[in-house]
Amino acid sequence: VNDVQAIIGNDRFAQAVGIELLEAGDGRARARLRIEARHLNGLDMVHGAAIYSLADLAFAAAANSQGATAVAISVNISYIKAVRGGVLYAEGEPVAVSRRIGTYAIRVTDEAGELVATFQGMAYRRPVDAEGV
Amino acid sequence: VNDVQAIIGNDRFAQAVGIELLEAGDGRARARLRIEARHLNGLDMVHGAAIYSLADLAFAAAANSQGATAVAISVNISYIKAVRGGVLYAEGEPVAVSRRIGTYAIRVTDEAGELVATFQGMAYRRPVDAEGV
Amino acid sequence: VNDVQAIIGNDRFAQAVGIELLEAGDGRARARLRIEARHLNGLDMVHGAAIYSLADLAFAAAANSQGATAVAISVNISYIKAVRGGVLYAEGEPVAVSRRIGTYAIRVTDEAGELVATFQGMAYRRPVDAEGV
Amino acid sequence: VNDVQAIIGNDRFAQAVGIELLEAGDGRARARLRIEARHLNGLDMVHGAAIYSLADLAFAAAANSQGATAVAISVNISYIKAVRGGVLYAEGEPVAVSRRIGTYAIRVTDEAGELVATFQGMAYRRPVDAEGV
Repeated sequence: VNDVQAIIGNDRFAQAVGIELLEAGDGRARARLRIEARHLNGLDMVHGAAIYSLADLAFAAAANSQGATAVAISVNISYIKAVRGGVLYAEGEPVAVSRRIGTYAIRVTDEAGELVATFQGMAYRRPVDAEGV
Repeated sequence: VNDVQAIIGNDRFAQAVGIELLEAGDGRARARLRIEARHLNGLDMVHGAAIYSLADLAFAAAANSQGATAVAISVNISYIKAVRGGVLYAEGEPVAVSRRIGTYAIRVTDEAGELVATFQGMAYRRPVDAEGV
Repeated sequence: VNDVQAIIGNDRFAQAVGIELLEAGDGRARARLRIEARHLNGLDMVHGAAIYSLADLAFAAAANSQGATAVAISVNISYIKAVRGGVLYAEGEPVAVSRRIGTYAIRVTDEAGELVATFQGMAYRRPVDAEGV
Repeated sequence: VNDVQAIIGNDRFAQAVGIELLEAGDGRARARLRIEARHLNGLDMVHGAAIYSLADLAFAAAANSQGATAVAISVNISYIKAVRGGVLYAEGEPVAVSRRIGTYAIRVTDEAGELVATFQGMAYRRPVDAEGV
């Protein structure tokens, strides 16, 4: 129905930010971001939007690995722990997936495995035979 | 208490993404992003994380313009309309601000003034005399 | 396509809680809750779930007044100001409505017009000719 | 610092709705709601606000079991599966707790253990020695 590798492979924003997709399939995905100076905010912490971008890639890869093209409609992110560098990981898994709506939970952790942020995303699923949202 | 210009001026992620702060003060802020190919996702739409990044700058600028250092703790974003190019604007305003917690609403619109996304962010405010979160 | 009065008129939970629908139509609605002791929490404040219930009725009435049966899929609520009694009002209006997804913003205010909570709800719209979610 | 049993025992809204606290301690809690006609909405499904109220009690009990008085500031709820009756359970656990902010995840399930809703709540924690929000 769609090819998650093609969609993510063509994701120019994720590439520009430096996010790498490690794996994706069956509603799950894992991504990585090696923190550099360009990922910091004005308080020298990793930028909330960089953390969001990392989680969002895991969300997009997870949501597009289940037989439909998925487009984000709503996301909640909670910032748990401030980080200043190192490598961050995002892991996504399905919470619930119906014909039209898929909900995914993504956890962002640091190298020590400590929780940095939680992200829950809801996507609209567009089957091949369907009209737009 | 803090200097919003200094905090935003040192925001390396926003600079790397290409987001410009247009104005900030009294809990309000306006930012702009001229869409380029590097802001697109794998479906050739403006990336949800690029839209988030734009809104987040308006949030950070608004929240840091009211006498305390503000750090995001929770954000909800709803994606309303897909866009493929042009210039996007984010405008932030306070919903409610108490001593420790500030909530701000940010609207992202396109050049025609049509709503692209709504973003509500909650920040923890750290007065000068206070300990951390 | 549906009758908002019939749906809300049959809403036994809202009735049990004591919520009154004041008006509904064209994606907008207004509801009221006169606070009694049974609406308080263990700290003698109006219960967050009572405030949610009030906002939710305005959401349901607004979302079901636009030509489709609407079912809530996701809600964010922010509690702005604690209240201990009096009368609360909820006013809902559309943020964006597409064929399948409707997003509504609801403001809860007290008798003085001060903001008590903000609520944003996303509903799945089921047109007459469509299958389930 | 506070007594979760006292706070929940005095929760008149939860009592009026018929929600029972099964256990609470160390940031965790479990609550139950036996569905009756008064918990239904106008479409004969369990009302979203009744589900919210159940989850909210588990949230309040979890958040008030960790050495501070906790007041909800922001909640996100996603409705996963419609239910028409039976018994619902809510289980809450901490996502992250700092001095001032506690985040808790609550899962609502039916008798078969199937997920009905996910709820994430953020509470402001008021230590004994502190001023208000």
